[in-house]
Amino acid sequence: MSHLLTTEDLSLTDFQKFTELASFFENHQKDSETTSGILRGKTILQLFLEDSTRTKISFELAAKRLGANVLHFSISQSSLNKGESLKDTILTLNQYHPDTWIIRAPRSGTCHLLTQWTKSPIVSAGDGQYQHPTQGLLDCWTLLNHLPSIKGKKIVLLGDILHSRVARSQIPLLNKLGAKITLCGPYTLLPKSAAEWEVHVEPVLEKAVAGADAIFCFRLQKERMTSALIPSQQEFHRIWGLTKKKHHDLCPQAWILHPGPVNWGVELGFDMEDHPKSLILEQVRRGLYMRMAVLARVLGKDPLV
Amino acid sequence: MSHLLTTEDLSLTDFQKFTELASFFENHQKDSETTSGILRGKTILQLFLEDSTRTKISFELAAKRLGANVLHFSISQSSLNKGESLKDTILTLNQYHPDTWIIRAPRSGTCHLLTQWTKSPIVSAGDGQYQHPTQGLLDCWTLLNHLPSIKGKKIVLLGDILHSRVARSQIPLLNKLGAKITLCGPYTLLPKSAAEWEVHVEPVLEKAVAGADAIFCFRLQKERMTSALIPSQQEFHRIWGLTKKKHHDLCPQAWILHPGPVNWGVELGFDMEDHPKSLILEQVRRGLYMRMAVLARVLGKDPLV
Amino acid sequence: MSHLLTTEDLSLTDFQKFTELASFFENHQKDSETTSGILRGKTILQLFLEDSTRTKISFELAAKRLGANVLHFSISQSSLNKGESLKDTILTLNQYHPDTWIIRAPRSGTCHLLTQWTKSPIVSAGDGQYQHPTQGLLDCWTLLNHLPSIKGKKIVLLGDILHSRVARSQIPLLNKLGAKITLCGPYTLLPKSAAEWEVHVEPVLEKAVAGADAIFCFRLQKERMTSALIPSQQEFHRIWGLTKKKHHDLCPQAWILHPGPVNWGVELGFDMEDHPKSLILEQVRRGLYMRMAVLARVLGKDPLV
Repeated sequence: MSHLLTTEDLSLTDFQKFTELASFFENHQKDSETTSGILRGKTILQLFLEDSTRTKISFELAAKRLGANVLHFSISQSSLNKGESLKDTILTLNQYHPDTWIIRAPRSGTCHLLTQWTKSPIVSAGDGQYQHPTQGLLDCWTLLNHLPSIKGKKIVLLGDILHSRVARSQIPLLNKLGAKITLCGPYTLLPKSAAEWEVHVEPVLEKAVAGADAIFCFRLQKERMTSALIPSQQEFHRIWGLTKKKHHDLCPQAWILHPGPVNWGVELGFDMEDHPKSLILEQVRRGLYMRMAVLARVLGKDPLV
Repeated sequence: MSHLLTTEDLSLTDFQKFTELASFFENHQKDSETTSGILRGKTILQLFLEDSTRTKISFELAAKRLGANVLHFSISQSSLNKGESLKDTILTLNQYHPDTWIIRAPRSGTCHLLTQWTKSPIVSAGDGQYQHPTQGLLDCWTLLNHLPSIKGKKIVLLGDILHSRVARSQIPLLNKLGAKITLCGPYTLLPKSAAEWEVHVEPVLEKAVAGADAIFCFRLQKERMTSALIPSQQEFHRIWGLTKKKHHDLCPQAWILHPGPVNWGVELGFDMEDHPKSLILEQVRRGLYMRMAVLARVLGKDPLV
Repeated sequence: MSHLLTTEDLSLTDFQKFTELASFFENHQKDSETTSGILRGKTILQLFLEDSTRTKISFELAAKRLGANVLHFSISQSSLNKGESLKDTILTLNQYHPDTWIIRAPRSGTCHLLTQWTKSPIVSAGDGQYQHPTQGLLDCWTLLNHLPSIKGKKIVLLGDILHSRVARSQIPLLNKLGAKITLCGPYTLLPKSAAEWEVHVEPVLEKAVAGADAIFCFRLQKERMTSALIPSQQEFHRIWGLTKKKHHDLCPQAWILHPGPVNWGVELGFDMEDHPKSLILEQVRRGLYMRMAVLARVLGKDPLV
């Protein structure tokens, strides 16, 4: 096992190993004797080229629970544009022989680029619009705890798919697990390449979610909309926002997932807070255990092997 | 023992247990074998909604001395106003099951609000103008190391009482310890509710401090003065600032305390730096041990029990 | 052993002890059992009055590898100018009894000033234009791994010597090691006091580097050039920048060092990246082990003694 840059090259066996180990860590969450020695003496370097307090804290806590030393290095893409190059930054930090890199970058492909300059494994913590593999893993794991099998189930990805690295991480896993995937959102937020993804595209929400088993919603990434892709947030919410009533009328059994933070009143109605079918907080909780599993396996320290 | 949000509901016995444990940690400050295992495997989450490097470092060091993992999460009140809600932030972080929260907030009542959304104990590290309980505890403990009993002693609280959460934390403890409390400051900086606090109010400094056993000064909180409450800092200093000469002439035996950082030349004269009756640096030092005591007890790990 | 503020008062024996211990740590880099207990229970306080992510991370990792607790405290010089004094900040932090201070300051002499206010040893991590002693130590150690003896060797210091605390840290060590030192750069960037430094001054690059055994380059500190000291960066590069061709024609055996980050195309040509005689990344790597050695010795915990 080396890098984790994308879910595309993970087999079903890989996925199962991650979920088994994540479950193990969940079951041993109060047993720090067992977990805190697993990465003792290891140095994990977090390099964040864009801000993300939530993802940072999830990975940092995962690493610390396993006993690793964590160093955090933040540098904005704008600083890299002006001064020191990304290559110099990587080559410099690489001299400290980090056992693993955790990298967050606003430009697609950054993580792959970095593999040229270090021999240590790289875990992507979000890479432009390309992939956010730990999020894809934890989302599918979360859903599997409520749908014993995803095979043949109707899974809807709803909203801004175009800019979503999370969607690009979920789809390969959902496909391997046998889901029937439907993408739904405004045409301007659906990628042209969707045809190659083995998915069904249905821009009308009422048709898309009818009878769905789960709906994966996405944050409307205001900062990534370089042009006017939707008339307004209110308009988006009216047509593609999921409300309690739409859920009740169209797909009352559907589990609801969202990578957070939610724009309440945009992707999801205010009346969806605390909804009994919402798995949003559970995703956060499972994220910790999945990231522990990823770090342990990437470092060759899976205690179940 | 659960939250520590206010000193108002602490009994004299509670106070004694905190000071005994703080003294224990002070006496064992060089004995990391004894202390560093007390909170091993525990995760403490610092959530700071306003900046405070000093308080942050004091709590962080206290937690680390006890062997805990510390995660720090800063988010400004202004970000909360614009985007993600405080509730979402808390619910998200709560998924990591912190063993304790340490919370600093600019708006009074935030800590109480948060108790609705988490089952873990919350330690207030300053809550608007409401309370800063660890500061109240450490201040009284510091003074007790110089005045064997506070009973019947004249204690003056001098300056901006209106905006001071520190004063609101000290007064309930001083009252329980039997002090005779006098508030002194400009009328505009004395709270209207002072009548309910079992204190004497005396706006004239010369009368207030005459024969005092201790004077607790407060930082002139420029950022909290929403309207022009004093003519000028110079004017304030001339009338309510404590100088070496005033101290010498009016209350030479009085111990001087201040939560820091001091505005020298405002609350205290420049000639009060290094004054032999000043306990200001001792307050900082004892703050570390008191916060260790608070964390250990809140987490149910008091080694003296 | 107490402070490390300057390389000027280090003897050759001191230097050897540092390099022996740094080599020991390099050889035991994968042996965390041996190293991670050396500073267990110690608290190291990093006080940075100017930004430096690279130096911060190098010291922080060094301290953590030795098992110490590290607290980082950043405050900008501009905040100190406006509000709380440097003295108050130091006296406050000193109450936590840090076992060692690591201090970075933009104004020459700050570290010496601080020795008045604390009894704990201070390690300078860069002090205005005065000294950056750990950089001087690691640079000489790095070179000695490629030149078995520096005695009688021609070492050129090239570029902005005037503003370089690194040069001021290297020169006393190089002199003690018996090097023949030549300073080279525009007259406006050569210090007037160079005459007292037992060095040769030669502003013409072609003459200075001819036959050199090593060239120490310096970053053109744009932020420190308070007046127009060079016509332009392009002009500087044309005359004093080291290119592959100049190196090949004038001193093909010369090792090349630079404290980083390099302004490629200014001090060094773009064609010098990945040059086989460059030791720039090795300097970064050895920096970690040298800083571990410095911290262990300053704290009286040299495992070789």
